[in-house]
Amino acid sequence: MIEDKTPHRTQLSDLGEFGLIAHLTADFKTKQPSTLKGIGDDAAVMNFDDKKTVVSTDLLIEGVHFDLSYVPLKHLGYKAVSVNVSDIYAMNARATQITVSIAVSNRFPLEALEELYAGIYLACERYEVDLVGGDTTSSTRGLIISVTAIGEAQEDELVYRNGAKENDLIVLTGDIGGAYMGLQILEREKAVFQVNPHSQPDLDMYTYILERQLKPEARKDIPPLLKALGVKPTAMMDVSDGLSSEILHICSQSGVGCRLYEDKIPLDPQVISTCEEFNLDSTTIALSGGEDYELLFTIAQADYDKIKGNPHFSVIGHITPKDDGVNLVTRAGQFIPIIARGWNALSKD
Amino acid sequence: MIEDKTPHRTQLSDLGEFGLIAHLTADFKTKQPSTLKGIGDDAAVMNFDDKKTVVSTDLLIEGVHFDLSYVPLKHLGYKAVSVNVSDIYAMNARATQITVSIAVSNRFPLEALEELYAGIYLACERYEVDLVGGDTTSSTRGLIISVTAIGEAQEDELVYRNGAKENDLIVLTGDIGGAYMGLQILEREKAVFQVNPHSQPDLDMYTYILERQLKPEARKDIPPLLKALGVKPTAMMDVSDGLSSEILHICSQSGVGCRLYEDKIPLDPQVISTCEEFNLDSTTIALSGGEDYELLFTIAQADYDKIKGNPHFSVIGHITPKDDGVNLVTRAGQFIPIIARGWNALSKD
Repeated sequence: MIEDKTPHRTQLSDLGEFGLIAHLTADFKTKQPSTLKGIGDDAAVMNFDDKKTVVSTDLLIEGVHFDLSYVPLKHLGYKAVSVNVSDIYAMNARATQITVSIAVSNRFPLEALEELYAGIYLACERYEVDLVGGDTTSSTRGLIISVTAIGEAQEDELVYRNGAKENDLIVLTGDIGGAYMGLQILEREKAVFQVNPHSQPDLDMYTYILERQLKPEARKDIPPLLKALGVKPTAMMDVSDGLSSEILHICSQSGVGCRLYEDKIPLDPQVISTCEEFNLDSTTIALSGGEDYELLFTIAQADYDKIKGNPHFSVIGHITPKDDGVNLVTRAGQFIPIIARGWNALSKD
Repeated sequence: MIEDKTPHRTQLSDLGEFGLIAHLTADFKTKQPSTLKGIGDDAAVMNFDDKKTVVSTDLLIEGVHFDLSYVPLKHLGYKAVSVNVSDIYAMNARATQITVSIAVSNRFPLEALEELYAGIYLACERYEVDLVGGDTTSSTRGLIISVTAIGEAQEDELVYRNGAKENDLIVLTGDIGGAYMGLQILEREKAVFQVNPHSQPDLDMYTYILERQLKPEARKDIPPLLKALGVKPTAMMDVSDGLSSEILHICSQSGVGCRLYEDKIPLDPQVISTCEEFNLDSTTIALSGGEDYELLFTIAQADYDKIKGNPHFSVIGHITPKDDGVNLVTRAGQFIPIIARGWNALSKD
C-alpha cells in the first residue's frame, strides 16, 4: 500500500542514521521553557524547577498494535503520541516533552517516514510537547515505534490509581466503545477489499468511530478543567485497555470495590448503531473495547456539585467496600461481577 | 537455542500482560530517593529538586543489534541497561531510573524473559538505578527491547557535545576496539558451529574482548572521578558508534577541527593480537568499531596536570581550528582526514 502512494522513493540507507534523524526532525522546534536541550546530544535535558518529573513509555508494533493496510502513517504518528501523553494526563500532570524511537525495515521509503513524522509533528503542536530525542534504526521486519512521554506536576497535583475511597463517585470523560467499533469497521472493509479490490466502501456513517480508532485525542483539557472546577480526583487512569480492566486496577490498588451502572455508561449513537449492525452488546464493547483514551477517575461525593451537568463528565458509579466486589449493575438491577476482558497483547486470540 | 536451555516452558499468555510485568519485576525494589512512584501507575514520578532531568532512549532489535544464537539473555538484559545509562554518564550526569519495554514473540517462554530480567536486575544494582516503568507486549517476530534512562545533574555539571575549544586536549577512558573484535570471534564461532555442531571452541584467549561485546560496562565511575579531580570536560560523549563517528560529532557541533594521534589510541593487547589473527588493521578497528561505551571528552590544557598519569585516561589528541579539519596523525606522521565509518544501523551491508 505504501508503495502505491509514493511514486518517488528515497532509500533510507542513502541518508544514513544521523542524516535521517536530522531530516525527519528539521521542522521540529522546542517551545517548552522546561526544555534545556533537545535532539542532538547523548541525552535531552529538562528543567522542572520545583515540580516533579513524570515519565511514561509505550511500544507500538506493526501487526500487533496497528495494521498499515488501513492505518495511514500520518494518523499512526499522531496516535503514537496521543496514547503516551494520555498517560501523563492520567497522572493529572502536564505533558511537556516526548522522545520517539523508530525501527523500520527497508521496505519503507523516506517518504513514508516523512508521513509518520508529519503526524508526530501535528501531535506535538496539538499537545504542546517538544520532541527532544529518540533513536532511528532498522528492523528485520515491519515498523516499531517507541515513545516516551515526559511531564511535570506539583506534587500535590498528582493523582495515582490507589486513592479511591468508599462512597467516592466514579466519573468518565467523553464516551467509550467508539475506538473498538471503528476497528471492527476497518477490519471488515479490509476483508471486503481483499475479496474485491474494486469495492468503494461508503464510510460516511462511521466517521466518528473511525476517527476514535485512527486519530484518538488524549484528554489534555481535563487536568486544567478539573483544576478550574476545584476538583482533585482521588484516583485516575486513562482508558486504554478497556473500562473493565481499568476499574479493576483502580479498585485493586485502592483496596475497594465498586458498582458501575450499565445505564450510565456514555455511548455515542454511532457506537450503539454499529453494535446493532454487528450484533454485539454495546455494554460489553464499552467495558472491554479499549483504546478510547478517555480518563476514568474517582471524586469525593462532596465534589459532585462541581462537576454536575458538565458535558465532559458522566458519573457512572460509586466506590464500595472491598468485600462488595467490583460489579456492574444492569438495567434490570442485576449485579454482575466485572472481570477484565480488556485487550491483552499477549493472548493468542 | 533458547528451547534447549529451558526444559520447563511456561507460556506467556498463561500469565497475561499485567501478571507478566508483576512476575518479572517482583524482585525489583526502588532505592533512589528521587523515585516517588515506580511501576504500577500510568507513569513514574521523580523528584529531582533543584537538579535538571536528563533523559535518553534506545531501541534494541533482535537480528539487528543482537543475535540470540550467541548472546545469553542475561547478558543482553545487562547490556540493554549499560548502553542507555552510558548516555546519561556522557552528559556528566548521574543515572537514577530506567524504564524497560519489551516485545516478544510467543516462541519465548517465561523462563527466557526471567533470564533477561535477571540481567536487567544485575545492571540496576550495578548502576544504582531504579526500574520505574515500561510496557510488555507481543511481537510478530523476535525480541525488541526499548530502554529509557533518566538521570539528574546540577545545571553547571552538565557537559554537552558542543563545547570543545581550540587547543583543548582530547581524552578517552579505558581502551577501545575490544567490543568489535569480540563480535568477530562470536560470528566466527557461530559459523564454525553451523558447520560442525560438535566443535568445542577454546575461547580462553578472548575473554576480555568477549566480555567487552557481551557485557559492556558503562563508565559510571567517570563523572564522580572527574569531579574529584576538579575537571569539567568542555565536551563529552560516549563511544557507541565508533571513535571516528564520535569525534566528528564533537568537532562538527563545536565548530572545530582536531588531530588524533594513532600511536596514542589505547588498545588492549587482546585487541591487537586478535586483529593480527583476522588480518585487520587495529587502528581502523579502534576508529570504526563502536560499542565500547567508553567516554570521549575534551578538557582545557590547563587541566592536563589533573588527569596526567591517571590509568583511566589517555590523551589521544587535541582540538584545532575548524579549517584544519578532523585528522588522524599516523605513526609515520601522515595526516589522514577522518570520515565516519562507524556502525550505521540503516545501511544494508
